[in-house]
Amino acid sequence: MERLPGFRDFYPEPLPHQDQWSADARNYIFDTWRAVARRYGFREYDGPPLESLELYTTKSGDEIVAQLYNFTDKGDRAVALRPEMTPTLARMVAAHERNYKKPIKWFAIPQLFRYERQQKGRLREHFQFNADIFGETDPAADAELLALLIDSLRALKLTADDFVVRLSSRTAWRDFFARQGRHAEYEDDFYEVIDKLERTDSGQSDTKLRALGFSLDQVKAFIAAAEPTAELDAILKNLCARGLGDFVKIDYNVIRGLAYYTGVVFEAFDKKGELRAIAGGGRYDNLVKLISGGKVDLPGLGFGMGDVVLLELLKDRKVLPESSARLDVFCLIEDEALRAESLRLVQNLREGGSTVDYSFTPAKSDKQFKRALESRAAFTVKLERAADGALAVKMKNLKSREEKTVGLSEACKLIRTGLP
Amino acid sequence: MERLPGFRDFYPEPLPHQDQWSADARNYIFDTWRAVARRYGFREYDGPPLESLELYTTKSGDEIVAQLYNFTDKGDRAVALRPEMTPTLARMVAAHERNYKKPIKWFAIPQLFRYERQQKGRLREHFQFNADIFGETDPAADAELLALLIDSLRALKLTADDFVVRLSSRTAWRDFFARQGRHAEYEDDFYEVIDKLERTDSGQSDTKLRALGFSLDQVKAFIAAAEPTAELDAILKNLCARGLGDFVKIDYNVIRGLAYYTGVVFEAFDKKGELRAIAGGGRYDNLVKLISGGKVDLPGLGFGMGDVVLLELLKDRKVLPESSARLDVFCLIEDEALRAESLRLVQNLREGGSTVDYSFTPAKSDKQFKRALESRAAFTVKLERAADGALAVKMKNLKSREEKTVGLSEACKLIRTGLP
Repeated sequence: MERLPGFRDFYPEPLPHQDQWSADARNYIFDTWRAVARRYGFREYDGPPLESLELYTTKSGDEIVAQLYNFTDKGDRAVALRPEMTPTLARMVAAHERNYKKPIKWFAIPQLFRYERQQKGRLREHFQFNADIFGETDPAADAELLALLIDSLRALKLTADDFVVRLSSRTAWRDFFARQGRHAEYEDDFYEVIDKLERTDSGQSDTKLRALGFSLDQVKAFIAAAEPTAELDAILKNLCARGLGDFVKIDYNVIRGLAYYTGVVFEAFDKKGELRAIAGGGRYDNLVKLISGGKVDLPGLGFGMGDVVLLELLKDRKVLPESSARLDVFCLIEDEALRAESLRLVQNLREGGSTVDYSFTPAKSDKQFKRALESRAAFTVKLERAADGALAVKMKNLKSREEKTVGLSEACKLIRTGLP
Repeated sequence: MERLPGFRDFYPEPLPHQDQWSADARNYIFDTWRAVARRYGFREYDGPPLESLELYTTKSGDEIVAQLYNFTDKGDRAVALRPEMTPTLARMVAAHERNYKKPIKWFAIPQLFRYERQQKGRLREHFQFNADIFGETDPAADAELLALLIDSLRALKLTADDFVVRLSSRTAWRDFFARQGRHAEYEDDFYEVIDKLERTDSGQSDTKLRALGFSLDQVKAFIAAAEPTAELDAILKNLCARGLGDFVKIDYNVIRGLAYYTGVVFEAFDKKGELRAIAGGGRYDNLVKLISGGKVDLPGLGFGMGDVVLLELLKDRKVLPESSARLDVFCLIEDEALRAESLRLVQNLREGGSTVDYSFTPAKSDKQFKRALESRAAFTVKLERAADGALAVKMKNLKSREEKTVGLSEACKLIRTGLP
């Protein structure tokens, strides 16, 4: 039986094949995201992987349905596997924001889903690190969010040579559009052309822009000038104060496809420009109001960082750590008369916090030792009965090959206190 | 907009209401499960939350569909949100077992789903700690799995006064059934009566048993004798050697509803007997063969432990820790002229691994200090310009109220090296 197309199995390393997905690498990325988010004072939340379809159509219009993993459940509800976390988060925050001091700083690592009929071979799920701030309009919040984005990539051993965050502003584009005096009904169409500018043939873009009362030259001049708005200026200064100035640049090519952004928007890219965006986000000061049906009005901003492009980049830059799977101790049981006592030793070591394994069944000592080496154990321990009948533990450091014979409690202590 | 019935939102503490779900408690449970599984040398894996419906009907028959969260996807595939992890695991193991040394010891913490039309108010999802061993028929593997189960509950601060694992054996019941000389076609019906014995009126059970050629007295006598099989005896001895004998007892009332178990089966219960089973599992030596269509034959055994009953028990026993959310440092910014320098200090402290927060915008010093207390920060730090123009850090231990003024680099070092 096969897994469904577009879904992934995550195997422990060593992987069966190079192109398979590693549970170890996934854990490493998740652990790093979590650790950095916590250092920034962000708190973890989670919501259901399944939501009512309406939550997404309210936010993004009915066209979104073509990209959703949606269906009708047994209770005749129109539902969808979540394609993004922000609507769930906005729903949760709107329901209980009064319970929390502002600014609210929350993060989650949800699995997200999509289903486009025409896209064979593409993944239908991925994991995404989501971090959001609510209740603060000051650009200091945008800077804090960007600093978290940058530091989570730095914690994965990526440098300013590997990635850059391109900063832009819906406000700047709105001003540009307004200066031209065009009717607001063309505004979304205009943003759509800008969003696709880098992927579209110049002539085609120019034609589309002219139909909206602009020209490509005019737009390109605006992008090239890259005049920071007051918000962007404050953000740049803030990031420079933190020593993170090298990781960002103003780039008005970025505008973000999703309609709900209201202010600063940004995308992180690999510097070689070979991959899709590593992360993206921005300000969405009206979303909570929209999702809550007008009941709660709370400014918000956030980003999402997927696991797929990121993993590609980490592999390409060779900064993924070797699998973390290694034992602290492998317990050799060479004398079957001492199996019960050996199990007790294993138990003691594990209770002390060590990662311990052993052979379930009698096995030749060289086979057991081989298994210890394969498990990349730091130590072997072996119970021995001394001449006086007392039990002793023969410990071996598998790196230095140093050996030592100690009493039972000393062995536990030695391994507990940092493994000599 | 509301979330779907039967699904949960997980909020950071303090919770909006007592009966809401805590993301902090969930993380505490998940972290403990992970830590103990790793100490036992189990490796983490994961699979898709969505699988083909066939994976479940192959294992459990078509009747299972009534309990599944199943639907037809946009590609006309019959699919289901996973109701349990074992079929996915058996599929994954069957596909790549040759890549891994035996015994394979793996764990996962999947979210599982079900949808029974008639059950309003019941949860439709839960999380489950799954641990499994493949490639070992010796009862030593069963004992290792049971030890992991017991130690993961002990690590959550539950004791032998709080829970017990009731050990049983399909082999024992199969022998009992065979001794009666009844035709094998009645075997599953017989197990079904046994499985429901404790929840069914005696008269009714007796009638059903007599229809199958047994009597309730006879069955009760077999249960009361609780004669351990050779396997169970080996398991008990093994667990006693580890000092875990107090956590298990032979109890043939347990037989497990799922048809695929082949040997030892077990369930963990709270000792007050007020809750549903905390965990359950057993041996399923034929499942990999079944799922792989006969291609791979590998003995297996495993257990599942859900988060819902467990959380109820931990709350009842008052052993859930207070929320772990606390800051290491709150940085007070009282002199706005030093905001940039303060941001740099925040950055340095975070890079050193500390959890740090501060006020995004200018705020009165008592308001900032209140925020520091609310965040349960261990320390406040505040930049000050000394008479000679040099920057100094005023640190305050919020517990001892002790204060100290030190240089910038010393402050970072002091906080990095364990917070004085």
